[in-house]
Amino acid sequence: MPTTTSLDQDRLFPAEPRTRELARELYAGVAEAPIISPHGHVDPTLLATDRPFADPTDLLITHDHYVTRLLVASGCQFDELGLDPSRPADARAVWRRLAEHWHRFAGTASAYWIRHELAELFGIDEELAPANADRTYDRIAVTLAEPAFTPRELFRRFRIDVLATTDDPLDDLAAHRTLAADPGFPGRVLPTFRPDAYLDPEADGFAGRIERLLAESGRSTDFVGYLAALAGRRAHFVEHGAVSADHGVLEPVAFDLDAAEAERLFADAVAGRLDSAGARRFRGHMLFQMARMSVDDGLVMTVHPGVRRNHHTETFRAYGPDRGHDIPVRTEYTESIRPLLERFGMEPGFHLVLFAIDETLYSRELAPLAGFYPSVYVGAPWWFLDAPDAILRYRSAVTETAGFYRTSGFIDDTRAFLSIPARHDASRRLDAAFLARLVAEGRVSLPTAHRIAADLVDAIPREVFKL
Amino acid sequence: MPTTTSLDQDRLFPAEPRTRELARELYAGVAEAPIISPHGHVDPTLLATDRPFADPTDLLITHDHYVTRLLVASGCQFDELGLDPSRPADARAVWRRLAEHWHRFAGTASAYWIRHELAELFGIDEELAPANADRTYDRIAVTLAEPAFTPRELFRRFRIDVLATTDDPLDDLAAHRTLAADPGFPGRVLPTFRPDAYLDPEADGFAGRIERLLAESGRSTDFVGYLAALAGRRAHFVEHGAVSADHGVLEPVAFDLDAAEAERLFADAVAGRLDSAGARRFRGHMLFQMARMSVDDGLVMTVHPGVRRNHHTETFRAYGPDRGHDIPVRTEYTESIRPLLERFGMEPGFHLVLFAIDETLYSRELAPLAGFYPSVYVGAPWWFLDAPDAILRYRSAVTETAGFYRTSGFIDDTRAFLSIPARHDASRRLDAAFLARLVAEGRVSLPTAHRIAADLVDAIPREVFKL
Amino acid sequence: MPTTTSLDQDRLFPAEPRTRELARELYAGVAEAPIISPHGHVDPTLLATDRPFADPTDLLITHDHYVTRLLVASGCQFDELGLDPSRPADARAVWRRLAEHWHRFAGTASAYWIRHELAELFGIDEELAPANADRTYDRIAVTLAEPAFTPRELFRRFRIDVLATTDDPLDDLAAHRTLAADPGFPGRVLPTFRPDAYLDPEADGFAGRIERLLAESGRSTDFVGYLAALAGRRAHFVEHGAVSADHGVLEPVAFDLDAAEAERLFADAVAGRLDSAGARRFRGHMLFQMARMSVDDGLVMTVHPGVRRNHHTETFRAYGPDRGHDIPVRTEYTESIRPLLERFGMEPGFHLVLFAIDETLYSRELAPLAGFYPSVYVGAPWWFLDAPDAILRYRSAVTETAGFYRTSGFIDDTRAFLSIPARHDASRRLDAAFLARLVAEGRVSLPTAHRIAADLVDAIPREVFKL
Repeated sequence: MPTTTSLDQDRLFPAEPRTRELARELYAGVAEAPIISPHGHVDPTLLATDRPFADPTDLLITHDHYVTRLLVASGCQFDELGLDPSRPADARAVWRRLAEHWHRFAGTASAYWIRHELAELFGIDEELAPANADRTYDRIAVTLAEPAFTPRELFRRFRIDVLATTDDPLDDLAAHRTLAADPGFPGRVLPTFRPDAYLDPEADGFAGRIERLLAESGRSTDFVGYLAALAGRRAHFVEHGAVSADHGVLEPVAFDLDAAEAERLFADAVAGRLDSAGARRFRGHMLFQMARMSVDDGLVMTVHPGVRRNHHTETFRAYGPDRGHDIPVRTEYTESIRPLLERFGMEPGFHLVLFAIDETLYSRELAPLAGFYPSVYVGAPWWFLDAPDAILRYRSAVTETAGFYRTSGFIDDTRAFLSIPARHDASRRLDAAFLARLVAEGRVSLPTAHRIAADLVDAIPREVFKL
Repeated sequence: MPTTTSLDQDRLFPAEPRTRELARELYAGVAEAPIISPHGHVDPTLLATDRPFADPTDLLITHDHYVTRLLVASGCQFDELGLDPSRPADARAVWRRLAEHWHRFAGTASAYWIRHELAELFGIDEELAPANADRTYDRIAVTLAEPAFTPRELFRRFRIDVLATTDDPLDDLAAHRTLAADPGFPGRVLPTFRPDAYLDPEADGFAGRIERLLAESGRSTDFVGYLAALAGRRAHFVEHGAVSADHGVLEPVAFDLDAAEAERLFADAVAGRLDSAGARRFRGHMLFQMARMSVDDGLVMTVHPGVRRNHHTETFRAYGPDRGHDIPVRTEYTESIRPLLERFGMEPGFHLVLFAIDETLYSRELAPLAGFYPSVYVGAPWWFLDAPDAILRYRSAVTETAGFYRTSGFIDDTRAFLSIPARHDASRRLDAAFLARLVAEGRVSLPTAHRIAADLVDAIPREVFKL
Repeated sequence: MPTTTSLDQDRLFPAEPRTRELARELYAGVAEAPIISPHGHVDPTLLATDRPFADPTDLLITHDHYVTRLLVASGCQFDELGLDPSRPADARAVWRRLAEHWHRFAGTASAYWIRHELAELFGIDEELAPANADRTYDRIAVTLAEPAFTPRELFRRFRIDVLATTDDPLDDLAAHRTLAADPGFPGRVLPTFRPDAYLDPEADGFAGRIERLLAESGRSTDFVGYLAALAGRRAHFVEHGAVSADHGVLEPVAFDLDAAEAERLFADAVAGRLDSAGARRFRGHMLFQMARMSVDDGLVMTVHPGVRRNHHTETFRAYGPDRGHDIPVRTEYTESIRPLLERFGMEPGFHLVLFAIDETLYSRELAPLAGFYPSVYVGAPWWFLDAPDAILRYRSAVTETAGFYRTSGFIDDTRAFLSIPARHDASRRLDAAFLARLVAEGRVSLPTAHRIAADLVDAIPREVFKL
């Protein structure tokens, strides 16, 4: 018989009664606050078209590589999961795979979020298991068909105030325009400029992409024209409400090259004759140039480094990107990013949010950098680290050097729209738990803890992301 | 007056009463389960010959470099500890050294295990101290002479179901044959293929060892013959019940070299003219070849990287290996092991257990790798990390990304036969403690926690090690 | 209305009642023990001249780059903080800046210490805030003018037994002589030999400094004379009571060069024509030579590596060093320091205290090294890591491998004289908290925990620093 798992009202709070009581009190002050989501991957057309969700599998499995990767690791084939474009899978059959392997997710962040979603959105309080796979599938499917379950209705119900998406520089941002023009839409949906594929000569299809960029801009086809074209697209994003530009790089390395070298590297890059060392220098110079443009146009610069994408090449070739085999690598900021900070780190108004997926950076590099440079903020735990214990480790590693006010506020970074409330709720509970411990240990006063808890979900993200 | 230290029945459980109650309950379900020890260093002749143990010092000090290293650090000379082959020491005098320095072990894993052994096996409930050195020595010596205290009787008493040893590829495995042939022996003792010294051109005596390997196999003396000879020895191990091949490497780097380069490097290696860069490529290629052989013959591949052996050369020269100065180094997997995973990572039936002694790998590289590749399992905390706090840090770092089912189950890795129950018991208590916290924080349901606790000591090691 | 924050008598103890009770008991045994401060940066003339403190800002802000860096990060300008030598600031105005931004310090180590100081020394029990900035400023200013508030009176009140300062090799140590000659002075103030700027060819003003060193010594101006001059200054320090020599290096790398190479590098260094690779080799060789001299003259060798000083060059040029932008870098010991340990690691009487600001070193490298080499001790958490959670992480990472007796005892490392009791008190509370947990979890007996707590504040630092 499947186990009942109704959500514990005190979930994620420490067990020790007095600390739990404090956590409960601190959380109560922010539990219902509107959601500010300044970085994520929700598709804006979901909200613009407001089409109902397809089915439980499409909603909770297919597009969530946190989930499918662990099913693959557990022995499921890609086609069994509906991830082989040439062999569509039956949605219900995929759902049964998840139910069958559900115990393997115990303790993971994904399991935590999905339990929250099942309970809060679908009233499902039992642990997924083979015995209830069909019943839970049907329950969700019925709910999805209800009029209250459209993306826009959920946006309202989730109390989302701001939702930033992540967009290609050449995107026309029509979906964002649609939403901005709709007086009935209950929040802001902002684009984010994400130029990685236009800055990395080793990215698939780089030359063609640059060609389209330059054609669109009508600028000269040299490095100067390329920079101008990028600046032009940024301006387009700013006009559509963008507040940040996001940079996913393998290494957060910045180089300030002279104009001649930059021009030469660019010419080689579009000609496809740049070697790997040259490509590295070019990418590093473009990170530097992006900082310069952020100083100019005010877009907050966010950096997400340290992931080796598509680790298993054959899987990438067969099934495309975002298939769960993006694997972190050791990362360094202090020396790598220094040229950028030497030049722009003290610039008034420049905001640089540095994320890490290598936890060693928190106490060693990020908290000290954010504890000096007015421009630098320590990004919230990201990707594999957006999980209860990891979030507490992050606060423990960062706070003693940089406090709370040099951190970014929570970033859900998700493409799973339905998981947004679960993720923000978890973050609020964990910050409350962390603050409760500091209060219980006589390190922060309770009134100050209340102020910090409130600022973490409102004043801080608004300041950092200029909202 | 020495302090009484009778074993706390709730040892290693969190102090918070409700969590402790949960831990107690979860532990109770697995406390008496048989021991599966799929990787360790017990000498099989100990069990084959069943000779009684020599004396307390031989039993608990001399062969345990965890213990002798800290005595050396505390100022003891090697000869005082009986570690100088040319100057045998009085066993009782060595025991007195341990008693004198015992407070320096407080808080270490070794102290925890030894206290467990003294209490459970010898009924000694007082803290070792100069005042009781002779009394405790005598007490142990008397017990060792009892008929119930032979290795085989203890094997039975410890409820060991499977014990894997670690063996030289040219070992004839006679001791394993003896034990397998004995119908009265109450468990399985399996050899493990450990070929490091045959794969590393920089290992002392490499050329002579290869000569013996090739002579034994009767194969050609080129690289092809060398591979065939290794495969032949693996087959010999498989015939004798081996389930895994273990690889201790400085770096977990794999190279897929072409035949010509491999042949050339091998020729240079046996001729003793390979430089250090060439040796590195050769080792990397042999790790790749070992994976290929594991795909072929089904031996689970385990990798233990990241230790600079024999850090103080003069000590190594005077007293030999395993003297406590093997020091960990920073380690990298994501890029280093990638060629091996590109080729074999998705192979059905291939099992690759990746260990780490550099904790930064847990959340950054190992959990993400094991959270995608069906072949990869995160090895249990190993060596310096096989200790209470380190085990909890490991679970905290790994679980949120990979869950419990992508980990290897506990590995005692010990040459100290008497410490096996203490180590497995500690592991069970700590997993119970970790799970109890997840239950108390509303993250895992209690029934699921029970299932996981049970699987961690049975289903999981049996699956990972094909037992 | 500002919040009351009277010091919690149980601060820094775990909330769980039984563990808290144990921590309270362990702490009570050491709370009043005299302070041994074997490494720090207090100016000895402060005590020699015994001049009263200037004003609250000078006392608590201006010279504490832990505090000013976070004010800069919060948007304060250097001149607003009185850090621009050409534009002196009003002390009261600077204090108001701190009060205004005080909530941004919540959770940091600095906030913890300052609250302790305000409460214990000035009877200020309310949280700093704009509303009480002037009142608290006045309260402190009044107290500073009291006769009981001179540096010497505070030294006595703080129960400091030993205070080591950090001094330039060419310092005549007159202040130390004055204090040693004063029979009424209630403790020992010892100099520490800190030769970094004389060992690093890339340090500003290296050539001139070497010229002065050689001139002072009257030795030959070659490498041999340089070594003799350094040995001479060390002897001068030993005569004045020094017990240690401190080495701040970017990398803890040691090279044992032959005489000819050393001579050539030295000649190039003083001529200003050494390239960066040569400078690195020279520094590495000088670290090796410093170890040799420590073996000869008995000075304890301490190494503080891994900080990129003056990360933002323009700030350094405008406002000088120690302005809060010294940023840690990834550090390695096992391979880097090996040549030094190969030669001197087993030398009787040699003491080498290895510090880390990269936490990954604790369990991976430092505990294993100190767990074997009798000369090596793991330095206490330093700089950014001298904070409550970081200290507990340190004990957790180090103890299971090396116990408590291979660690250095607490080091306050501060230039903020008034913070010394707060820092030592925090350390004692945290060690009590850590030990209490081990007792509560049945891992260490309570009598042993009492012994360790006492040794950590007395026997251990006296042994390690030869006091």
